[in-house]
Amino acid sequence: MSTSPIDEILRARTIAVVGAQRTGEWGGGGFVASLRVFGYTGKVYPVNPKYPEIQGLVSYPTLRDIPGPVDYVISSVPAKEVLKMLEDAAYKGVRNIHLFTARLAETGRPDAIALERQILKLAKASGIRILGPNCMGIYCPSARIAFHTDFPREAGPVGLISQSGMLARELVHAGPRRGIHYSKVISYGNAIDLNECDLLEFMIDDTETHVILMYIEGVKQGHRFFEILKRATAVKPVIILKGGWGEAGARATASHTASLAGGTRVWNTMVEQAGAVTADTAEELIDLAAAFNFLPPVTGKRVGVVAVGGGASVLSADQCERAGLEVIPLPDEFRSELKRQNISIWDWLSNPADFSIREDDRLSVGLIMEMMARDPHFDLLISIMGFAGRPAGEPGMLLEDALEQQYRLKSCQQKPFLAVVTEYGARSPEELASRDMKGSSEVRSVLLKRGVPFFATVARAALAARKMADYYAGRARRS
Amino acid sequence: MSTSPIDEILRARTIAVVGAQRTGEWGGGGFVASLRVFGYTGKVYPVNPKYPEIQGLVSYPTLRDIPGPVDYVISSVPAKEVLKMLEDAAYKGVRNIHLFTARLAETGRPDAIALERQILKLAKASGIRILGPNCMGIYCPSARIAFHTDFPREAGPVGLISQSGMLARELVHAGPRRGIHYSKVISYGNAIDLNECDLLEFMIDDTETHVILMYIEGVKQGHRFFEILKRATAVKPVIILKGGWGEAGARATASHTASLAGGTRVWNTMVEQAGAVTADTAEELIDLAAAFNFLPPVTGKRVGVVAVGGGASVLSADQCERAGLEVIPLPDEFRSELKRQNISIWDWLSNPADFSIREDDRLSVGLIMEMMARDPHFDLLISIMGFAGRPAGEPGMLLEDALEQQYRLKSCQQKPFLAVVTEYGARSPEELASRDMKGSSEVRSVLLKRGVPFFATVARAALAARKMADYYAGRARRS
Repeated sequence: MSTSPIDEILRARTIAVVGAQRTGEWGGGGFVASLRVFGYTGKVYPVNPKYPEIQGLVSYPTLRDIPGPVDYVISSVPAKEVLKMLEDAAYKGVRNIHLFTARLAETGRPDAIALERQILKLAKASGIRILGPNCMGIYCPSARIAFHTDFPREAGPVGLISQSGMLARELVHAGPRRGIHYSKVISYGNAIDLNECDLLEFMIDDTETHVILMYIEGVKQGHRFFEILKRATAVKPVIILKGGWGEAGARATASHTASLAGGTRVWNTMVEQAGAVTADTAEELIDLAAAFNFLPPVTGKRVGVVAVGGGASVLSADQCERAGLEVIPLPDEFRSELKRQNISIWDWLSNPADFSIREDDRLSVGLIMEMMARDPHFDLLISIMGFAGRPAGEPGMLLEDALEQQYRLKSCQQKPFLAVVTEYGARSPEELASRDMKGSSEVRSVLLKRGVPFFATVARAALAARKMADYYAGRARRS
Repeated sequence: MSTSPIDEILRARTIAVVGAQRTGEWGGGGFVASLRVFGYTGKVYPVNPKYPEIQGLVSYPTLRDIPGPVDYVISSVPAKEVLKMLEDAAYKGVRNIHLFTARLAETGRPDAIALERQILKLAKASGIRILGPNCMGIYCPSARIAFHTDFPREAGPVGLISQSGMLARELVHAGPRRGIHYSKVISYGNAIDLNECDLLEFMIDDTETHVILMYIEGVKQGHRFFEILKRATAVKPVIILKGGWGEAGARATASHTASLAGGTRVWNTMVEQAGAVTADTAEELIDLAAAFNFLPPVTGKRVGVVAVGGGASVLSADQCERAGLEVIPLPDEFRSELKRQNISIWDWLSNPADFSIREDDRLSVGLIMEMMARDPHFDLLISIMGFAGRPAGEPGMLLEDALEQQYRLKSCQQKPFLAVVTEYGARSPEELASRDMKGSSEVRSVLLKRGVPFFATVARAALAARKMADYYAGRARRS
């Protein structure tokens, strides 16, 4: 097994940022600032002939002027200066370069396309591997490398390979809100050299990564990709969001990363045959990351649902069934047990269990969740908590109930448990400070502390659970 | 045209709440408190033999003891006391009763089912119309009638008919966050007498109501319903969420409102043939309410999209196309105009227009939106604003851009314009106070002030727009 260029980059002891800027907000300046903010332990060399000093560091006119070796180069020079920079890098014996530099083939302009080809040719001739162009590069908290200063310091088990840098950034920021922290995030843009195959291979072997997310616009080496994907899915869940589903999407991939999108419908079938999980939107990618990140394997589709309100129960059942889960009737033994415990609505309560009909305090959400968790008829549980305007202290599910159910479930965490906490975007400071915004943020915080993933709608929770069940069923079948 | 019982109820000058309680949180106590908080101008008579006074009002032992006429009765007595209450009501000449009273046929218990039949029989014999049982009744801000004290005072053009009271409450609270205010909300439960047909007929004639929302679990009079529905959709958009899609959902409707759900798939086809719009979830119902509430008629499916980020542009295009919209390429004239205005990426910019590639300040979001709004090739516009972690002051779309585009679009508001503002549920007070939560709540507030509906995802915006286009195309075809 040869070392991946990504491994080399993560072990780099000297990084040069060519085209560095004095302000740290964006581009060349942002890379320097991010390495410093993250406390990168190697040496950082800003390169820009315009300034003697950049962000408190000595700036060099060219790569050649740097004293000592350069392990890794981040380039944010304009496209027309890349060939010169490559020559300098070759002179310095650089092995890996990240080209943040963009406006190449994605512009669709013939001269830019030709230049991109020349860049690749020169890099190959010089033994230099290229990440990009037109990408944000690498974020790895444990290696103290990042491409934005405001990225989280905390590392986690989720790896992300994204052809889009802005999307990578959105996912990096959105992740922690769902309890997701990243091992490595790699934005790879036009992929003229290192492509999705190389990056996926790296993630397979990366011990820090337990769940792999991918955003792909176009695959460069189809056959190789499916072989590597099969190897990957046998050991780790791989969740793929493919951009370029239709005509307009394909046009957009061309002007974004010069990718040939192909047909997403056919693609999804192939990818699922290789054992990967497909996501249709960025929101679903995050949902699936949250589910795989927190839940034990989902080994079946029979779901027990807890809700407050008759309409909510009916609609929850509909959404679970639409997503392919089985909302089974309460088993006879379950009902007998309710009767034995003197629950007055033992004959009426159903699955979904609607807590708005409860008559006495003997019947608690915690009790039902615990009974469902212990009952082998149920493969997983979904609980719908909170909605707009529900005041504390009313009949039905309370925050205390939610906490109690969490507490009880600690004893039976082998059963996958998904929570639904509705999101309502606020419109004003008053709404941000309102009781239900605060209440639901409190519920989310408790859930994450106890390792329970939450979802904005029942439909999204149910779909994530069903796709998890499919993944584990497929993996068992193939192994 | 005969007067609807709902009209009579809204004109009631005396309301008796039987089974009233001294605390105003829930049930009989809640109805009294709500009428008082809303400043209901008629007389409120609490009825409960246990107390001489309730919430500062004289309480009467029975309906018979009330001096003078009683126009409308809200009953929250236990089921077993309803027959006696009905006799008293008949004695007083009451014409309309809302039965909040529940635990009847929905329990599935034979004695409760028999009692429900007796109740209906006695009511019919006494010339009394029944709303319910097992429902929350009526919320009408202009009549100062409500079933919860914390409902909004502001009235609006959206009418809601809901078989579920808890769902009605959720929608009443969620509505204003999307700029939706209600004319009348009617929760009707088991519908043993007044049913979805009567209520829809009422909404057709109600001048305060311009958009009708319905949540239905089971239709009592199928043929009549479709005749009335056709009449309704010819004059107002009717958006229907049907509960009980699958087996489990149908079981849940039975134990919620004793409804026979039927098959939702067949139902949706029939409802669409009658010209109504179908929603699959409560979230979609609100999305469609927001769209119909704010937008001018959507007369076609060709959409112009504005986004920031290549991945976001690709995924937006995919989601628009999946929803059935047409993301057309930029028309030649449009490109020529960009060139004429010296926009350096006139040849590269596409639809979706990705603002992360802009090179100079001549190209603003406001400019593109204005050009798309004026260009007859586009039937509608969708703009994706804000995502997690986007700081102010970076290249791409800024809040100022959003405001500018709103300002410019004021001059061309005949073109439907939908905004996407991502919702990220916060997990802590710090997150509630974070820059992007505040920023996006500010954007939402500005949008609503300018009459622009916003959506949590591109998929949801696109689906709402496409369904609006279908509604107006169908209405034009039939008229």
